[in-house]
Amino acid sequence: MSDRSSLSPAKLSLTALEGMPEVTAGMPLAPLIAAALERQALAPMSDDVLLVSQKIVSKSEGRFVDLAAVDVSARARDLAARCGKDPRLVEVILRESIEVVRCAPQVLIVRHRLGFVMANAGVDQSNVPGSAQWVLLLPQDPDGSAATLRRSLSAILGSSPSLIITDTFGRPWRSGVCGTAIGASGITTLLDRRGERDRSGRELKVTQVAIGDALAAAAALVMGEGAEGRPVVLARGLPAGLRHATARASDVLRPLAEDLFR
Amino acid sequence: MSDRSSLSPAKLSLTALEGMPEVTAGMPLAPLIAAALERQALAPMSDDVLLVSQKIVSKSEGRFVDLAAVDVSARARDLAARCGKDPRLVEVILRESIEVVRCAPQVLIVRHRLGFVMANAGVDQSNVPGSAQWVLLLPQDPDGSAATLRRSLSAILGSSPSLIITDTFGRPWRSGVCGTAIGASGITTLLDRRGERDRSGRELKVTQVAIGDALAAAAALVMGEGAEGRPVVLARGLPAGLRHATARASDVLRPLAEDLFR
Repeated sequence: MSDRSSLSPAKLSLTALEGMPEVTAGMPLAPLIAAALERQALAPMSDDVLLVSQKIVSKSEGRFVDLAAVDVSARARDLAARCGKDPRLVEVILRESIEVVRCAPQVLIVRHRLGFVMANAGVDQSNVPGSAQWVLLLPQDPDGSAATLRRSLSAILGSSPSLIITDTFGRPWRSGVCGTAIGASGITTLLDRRGERDRSGRELKVTQVAIGDALAAAAALVMGEGAEGRPVVLARGLPAGLRHATARASDVLRPLAEDLFR
Repeated sequence: MSDRSSLSPAKLSLTALEGMPEVTAGMPLAPLIAAALERQALAPMSDDVLLVSQKIVSKSEGRFVDLAAVDVSARARDLAARCGKDPRLVEVILRESIEVVRCAPQVLIVRHRLGFVMANAGVDQSNVPGSAQWVLLLPQDPDGSAATLRRSLSAILGSSPSLIITDTFGRPWRSGVCGTAIGASGITTLLDRRGERDRSGRELKVTQVAIGDALAAAAALVMGEGAEGRPVVLARGLPAGLRHATARASDVLRPLAEDLFR
């Protein structure tokens, strides 16, 4: 087999773009990102990865919902009483979801229609300008959004860095959120190392590495939360072998039949 | 409140140390790491973080078990039949565990006595030199190992970088493993951002960030798996505000009472 060791870089750097403006509905992201890159004299290469916060993608796509206009179903009202959340918010969460995985005080974990198991279906009340009535949904198709934004950026930049759309997810058993890849274009998100051997010549037991999620986790460290307003990060140092024409963030989703934690 | 935005760096770099030798039982790690740092002309500063693979810590601590010498209990035999694993390996896993969380074909997820919910209690059959009969356990006390190794390194280096011991964990619902912090000394592992406000002045809903796990995930990207043999990574760029005298990796463990996925 080929030299797979070249799939791990020996050095990786993550640089946040500064001065990104507040994004509003309909505002194209590619020119904003290209301008921020230019201000920092960063010329992305095709092996680089741009990591973009879900929030600005959703805002650009106008994924706002006015809670004041939401009719609450009986099911949402019942769940809201159990988890202590706003019934209108719970209604929006249910409309984004295909399954309620857990409902407990202050916790509503669902399987999003895109397949992600996550709190509140990713529906976000923070960093939405204007009334507290407005919430923000995930992009309609984050892998598609990543591909579209990547194409737009390539046209401006003249190079084709990969692109990952990130959100922050909680985890069972461990406190705190971690950055997670919800959309991707141009890069392997799940690296299959089956057949490789360790230094003792024994076949590796760990066969798949969540490259996209690890990059998202690293990027979230430099994005910060809230006040920083650094929703785009350039990751540099990844080997060309991780480029992938058709990989998607959804490659990482475990098939339902393998879900031991429904 | 103080300026918390300084808790996210705008730039972060991760550099793997090259040329680390195969570690054997009783071999002190601090001189090996210090020598590798010097070869790469890396002089760690106190705000830097050294991320060290669990495997070399366990090897240095001699945490090997010879499967040939393991007496298999009836319970291990029963579980082994259900998950299709070596009964002697299952016995070792059970001795390291306080609870079996899930058992299914090719899957044995337990709560390790240290509190981690993980596959196979972290018992590792790969990269153990010699016979396939030998397996490697997690360090007895990874937070303690991190503190001890950090002290030894400080004595050699003259500075006190933080230290995180990493392992790779699978996740429910998402395929692939991600680097995870199992031991830490000198750095905040769970950053509490309660009370901070977003750019719209609304209080942040996401209150805790798993800094240690995100750094471990990033470091695992440059460590690689298996053939690379790069078990130590230097992370640079973290703000001084993340230094913490008493934080431990175990801070991230969710209390049992909050576990919705037993």
